[in-house]
Amino acid sequence: MIKVGVVGATGYTGIELLRLLSKHKAVELAVATSNSEKGSAVQDVFPNLRAHVDLEFAGHDSEQLKSCDFVFFATPHATAMHHVPELLDQGCKVIDLSADFRISNPALWEHWYQVKHACPDLLSEAVYGLPELNRQKIKDASLIANPGCYPTAITLALLPAVEKGLINVADIIADAKSGVSGAGRKAALATQFSEVSESFKAYSASGHRHLPEILQTLNNVQTELEVNLTFVPHLVPMNRGIFATVYVKSIDNAEELQEHYAAYYAQEKFVDVMPQGSHPDTASVRATNSCRIAIHPGKDKSQPTVILSVIDNLVKGAAGQAIQNMNIMLGLDESTGLATPGLKP
Amino acid sequence: MIKVGVVGATGYTGIELLRLLSKHKAVELAVATSNSEKGSAVQDVFPNLRAHVDLEFAGHDSEQLKSCDFVFFATPHATAMHHVPELLDQGCKVIDLSADFRISNPALWEHWYQVKHACPDLLSEAVYGLPELNRQKIKDASLIANPGCYPTAITLALLPAVEKGLINVADIIADAKSGVSGAGRKAALATQFSEVSESFKAYSASGHRHLPEILQTLNNVQTELEVNLTFVPHLVPMNRGIFATVYVKSIDNAEELQEHYAAYYAQEKFVDVMPQGSHPDTASVRATNSCRIAIHPGKDKSQPTVILSVIDNLVKGAAGQAIQNMNIMLGLDESTGLATPGLKP
Amino acid sequence: MIKVGVVGATGYTGIELLRLLSKHKAVELAVATSNSEKGSAVQDVFPNLRAHVDLEFAGHDSEQLKSCDFVFFATPHATAMHHVPELLDQGCKVIDLSADFRISNPALWEHWYQVKHACPDLLSEAVYGLPELNRQKIKDASLIANPGCYPTAITLALLPAVEKGLINVADIIADAKSGVSGAGRKAALATQFSEVSESFKAYSASGHRHLPEILQTLNNVQTELEVNLTFVPHLVPMNRGIFATVYVKSIDNAEELQEHYAAYYAQEKFVDVMPQGSHPDTASVRATNSCRIAIHPGKDKSQPTVILSVIDNLVKGAAGQAIQNMNIMLGLDESTGLATPGLKP
Amino acid sequence: MIKVGVVGATGYTGIELLRLLSKHKAVELAVATSNSEKGSAVQDVFPNLRAHVDLEFAGHDSEQLKSCDFVFFATPHATAMHHVPELLDQGCKVIDLSADFRISNPALWEHWYQVKHACPDLLSEAVYGLPELNRQKIKDASLIANPGCYPTAITLALLPAVEKGLINVADIIADAKSGVSGAGRKAALATQFSEVSESFKAYSASGHRHLPEILQTLNNVQTELEVNLTFVPHLVPMNRGIFATVYVKSIDNAEELQEHYAAYYAQEKFVDVMPQGSHPDTASVRATNSCRIAIHPGKDKSQPTVILSVIDNLVKGAAGQAIQNMNIMLGLDESTGLATPGLKP
Repeated sequence: MIKVGVVGATGYTGIELLRLLSKHKAVELAVATSNSEKGSAVQDVFPNLRAHVDLEFAGHDSEQLKSCDFVFFATPHATAMHHVPELLDQGCKVIDLSADFRISNPALWEHWYQVKHACPDLLSEAVYGLPELNRQKIKDASLIANPGCYPTAITLALLPAVEKGLINVADIIADAKSGVSGAGRKAALATQFSEVSESFKAYSASGHRHLPEILQTLNNVQTELEVNLTFVPHLVPMNRGIFATVYVKSIDNAEELQEHYAAYYAQEKFVDVMPQGSHPDTASVRATNSCRIAIHPGKDKSQPTVILSVIDNLVKGAAGQAIQNMNIMLGLDESTGLATPGLKP
Repeated sequence: MIKVGVVGATGYTGIELLRLLSKHKAVELAVATSNSEKGSAVQDVFPNLRAHVDLEFAGHDSEQLKSCDFVFFATPHATAMHHVPELLDQGCKVIDLSADFRISNPALWEHWYQVKHACPDLLSEAVYGLPELNRQKIKDASLIANPGCYPTAITLALLPAVEKGLINVADIIADAKSGVSGAGRKAALATQFSEVSESFKAYSASGHRHLPEILQTLNNVQTELEVNLTFVPHLVPMNRGIFATVYVKSIDNAEELQEHYAAYYAQEKFVDVMPQGSHPDTASVRATNSCRIAIHPGKDKSQPTVILSVIDNLVKGAAGQAIQNMNIMLGLDESTGLATPGLKP
Repeated sequence: MIKVGVVGATGYTGIELLRLLSKHKAVELAVATSNSEKGSAVQDVFPNLRAHVDLEFAGHDSEQLKSCDFVFFATPHATAMHHVPELLDQGCKVIDLSADFRISNPALWEHWYQVKHACPDLLSEAVYGLPELNRQKIKDASLIANPGCYPTAITLALLPAVEKGLINVADIIADAKSGVSGAGRKAALATQFSEVSESFKAYSASGHRHLPEILQTLNNVQTELEVNLTFVPHLVPMNRGIFATVYVKSIDNAEELQEHYAAYYAQEKFVDVMPQGSHPDTASVRATNSCRIAIHPGKDKSQPTVILSVIDNLVKGAAGQAIQNMNIMLGLDESTGLATPGLKP
Repeated sequence: MIKVGVVGATGYTGIELLRLLSKHKAVELAVATSNSEKGSAVQDVFPNLRAHVDLEFAGHDSEQLKSCDFVFFATPHATAMHHVPELLDQGCKVIDLSADFRISNPALWEHWYQVKHACPDLLSEAVYGLPELNRQKIKDASLIANPGCYPTAITLALLPAVEKGLINVADIIADAKSGVSGAGRKAALATQFSEVSESFKAYSASGHRHLPEILQTLNNVQTELEVNLTFVPHLVPMNRGIFATVYVKSIDNAEELQEHYAAYYAQEKFVDVMPQGSHPDTASVRATNSCRIAIHPGKDKSQPTVILSVIDNLVKGAAGQAIQNMNIMLGLDESTGLATPGLKP
């Protein structure tokens, strides 16, 4: 059995890792850490895990992490970077679900996250863990930068078209919406039930940290033009789900996109290109590792084509994709532990 | 006292009219009709109106409507058009909250609503009831086509810029989101609680009936270019609220928009231009007749400017705006019966 | 105009006071305090109050409070008691929406609230502000202990039967449910959206602070037997509303309760005894000062009678009832500023 | 592989059966029927099942059902009874999730369901499928009457105490609350999002069909006294979950209940007796087959003991329990296909 540890296991992403890893047949869940709940039984803090996880929370500095084959970081940014070098030295493989290793340019990372990076040399070593893009590199990686939730939904919606030059990369708009679990599990006024329910709003409309991550990926897969993407995130009064409405202008015939996308993702288990004109809802991917994409072609070049993309932010947008990456690194079937239909309702 | 009647008073828009009109100091609520609840006491069907509305539902064909000074139609489309001519003949003023008189071109109306119009000659006579645009015409009108909810939020977000030629009208995107009450009050599978809650989706992404209504208004206030607007509506798991995220490209300096909008709406009681860079939420206008607008200027001409606009779909997007129109027609203060702060939470 | 101040105006109860008082025709809102937001404009913190409240938050120690005719405390418990004596000395009338003056026995208060009372001598002077019970005393009071939300719903459901000896007071169960706003507006993990939505739970099942308050009232209106009430509160994933399901055993014929309740509350503007067998929902009283009660008589003495009672916890359960008390103290119509129908949806 | 069919696969219970059965390793999902969606692909109607269920909906009269080893009925009441006799004749085993075979007394069934029973002779043959009570009988049964959702939660909360005579069965109150999916998947006005969200209410307070089912079970496990249970169901604005707050009066020492319950359910995989004084929430069992129970002992004989019981109405209250029954009948581990932790959030 593969020994795994989860650092930061009391956030929503961490709980989701525990939920999924506890049923993963190749894995032994050996350590779960939480500085705030250190010493408590996992199942006392999270009754949903009673009879499923029999561990006490350790601290982030637990020595046991070093004996793990895989360590997942589900911490806020600027935490993993202080622990990862030592773990790599010990021979652990690390999958970081935070932002610490997603941006390869240290200066750009420091600009957006406003803190000095603790191990900038590792930035170029880390592999961006989007399997549909980097499967080969992931296989041999020691350190995975697991993509953000918005970047996963938006990048998968754009990748086939950008890579093949089918759309004008200088004019893309991504209007994205997230469930509240995306804001993390912490005592905050802004995400209190009565502040959020029965309301809808945009936030960070003038700039969000996931923007440079998306741009980096899209600029890497084509070099013709600098990608110009306007990204506005919104908060939806629901727990789980990312919905991205992406507006692009096709270079040629927008009708060809459907066929190209279907072919591009034909072998992907977790990307589902729906019939043209479909309307996926976030509920259809709830608690699954799937991304569903639907295309509504513009009638002519002047009218944008609309690409809809949905994921569960905690699964394909975080814990599920992290496990998918681990499966790839282990040579397992990618869907091991992830092959569940969506929960309805 | 002004005698008023409400036709179709069992829909959410109709109930909202009853709620607001029952407290309007210049008004006597004389008739409320419902074909399905004919003969029932209003307060038996809607306990929230106990002690506030002492009427029985009449049928839509009630003779009493003819003795009203004002008749509001809160019916599905293709209903009002069969009753309005006779009411106008009797000297009633009519405010139609449905779509029947919003499109002045009969062929265009029939294309989108897929039914023959019963009184196409009245289309040119009807005044589009957006007070911020048509206040003078509304004063003297007999027949008001009350704007749709999406068109209200989107048009108010665009009007100052389009009228003055500050943005490129050939390239506008309106990504709009609505609470579920916008779908009406009827037994439908698609809007069951368990189909809608904990989910988010787009609908009619390839074309929605509110598009021609918005285009008509924007093409009327400028004639330089044909407006090209992409409009995608979405469904939010909440009861009330419209949120429009509008992406425009400024002709010149996007920074000038803020000042222009503030001046344009300076005298308007129900349009609140917030400080530049604000993030209004729909909750801040819940149960009010206000539209709040915030501008996030693009950094240069290549980057879109984002205009955020929020209303309560049942108030400024329907019943409240209808009463605002009635107030104008009666020469009353426009805010009579509408001057309430938002409900939080 | 009556000058009023609100201490603790950034909680949900405080915001509700601002919302209602800003439209109260006899009142000038002179001071709103918040230690955390001192110096901020009210409308910057709460955009729903833009154009309605033109004040800056003062601190709780604002000298201006002393010049107010009425001061409302919407603070957590153990705050008002430190300020009230001085305000009373200055001639202010005080309506305390917290628990500080609800229990007349200081030892009992200190047992439940685990802090020493700062002015125990005032406990006997304070009038419990349930107008349906204490209207005459309220008229002449200087200090009102405004009832808790659960006690309001439960006491109104029991008062007529207990007072007249129609039920067995030694065997009462109140299974009560509250919306999340009842937990207050603060950064807490337990009331985060994703902790609360899509879930339901009981809390404090072994004892809740509102129990002694209810018992005190019921033991005051009859002296035959010690009241034995089991009270279990629950948390509902919604913003507003209290629902109490009260199980009682009738002494004689349960069928007589309906008539007795209807007569008892016949003159009350804010208690609505619905037809026997009705099923009120909390939505029917949303944003109103009403309590709706419905009785389902048990078939015989062995079967409990079920009494259903609904209020809006922020209105009849807090801010609305406080204003009702002020209206009584001022000799105004009790419904001044409170005569609004429920918001649906 | 065991061939299974699901009749009525477009309701929430039916979809849940498809979701769970599609991943059950011993099962081949051979037929899914729906009269309304006959001929459609399952995955076109339910996109959450794309790539998981590759079937077209057949009609309820599909001949293929006869070749199944197990047929599940997830139909409204009074449907299964018309099909079951023929299927049993063909050698199929039948698990009926509707109410058709839950009440062994035909007259009582017909009183509550207001229709003549089509095969009353089968009522005594059907085994009530509560594994914790009837495991041995289930093993050899051909026809299972799968318990209702409320009866599952309430019966499991009472069974140990009633069987051993620890409480007064003549005085039990069950105040129960259900998520909206319990009302079924159909176009109904009462369960529209905007009718249900942000509201809470009781329904059927004077008598609900699940009452005789609970009474039958409790009267079967003890014969000392006629059970007198008052049961009031409520509707919670959430999708999944049943919460039962059960008030009982202990005969002797309420403190002994905890130990007895823990022992009674010690070997049960799907009943979790939590530490005394716990507060389970419905979210902790979301999407699982678990029932969690917590006891709050009354302080003396006059004060009721409170027993809290939570389940997911669609899993332990319907589809999961049905599969648990099938597993028992097949001699499989009971948790096959059901061993998942709860989804949080």
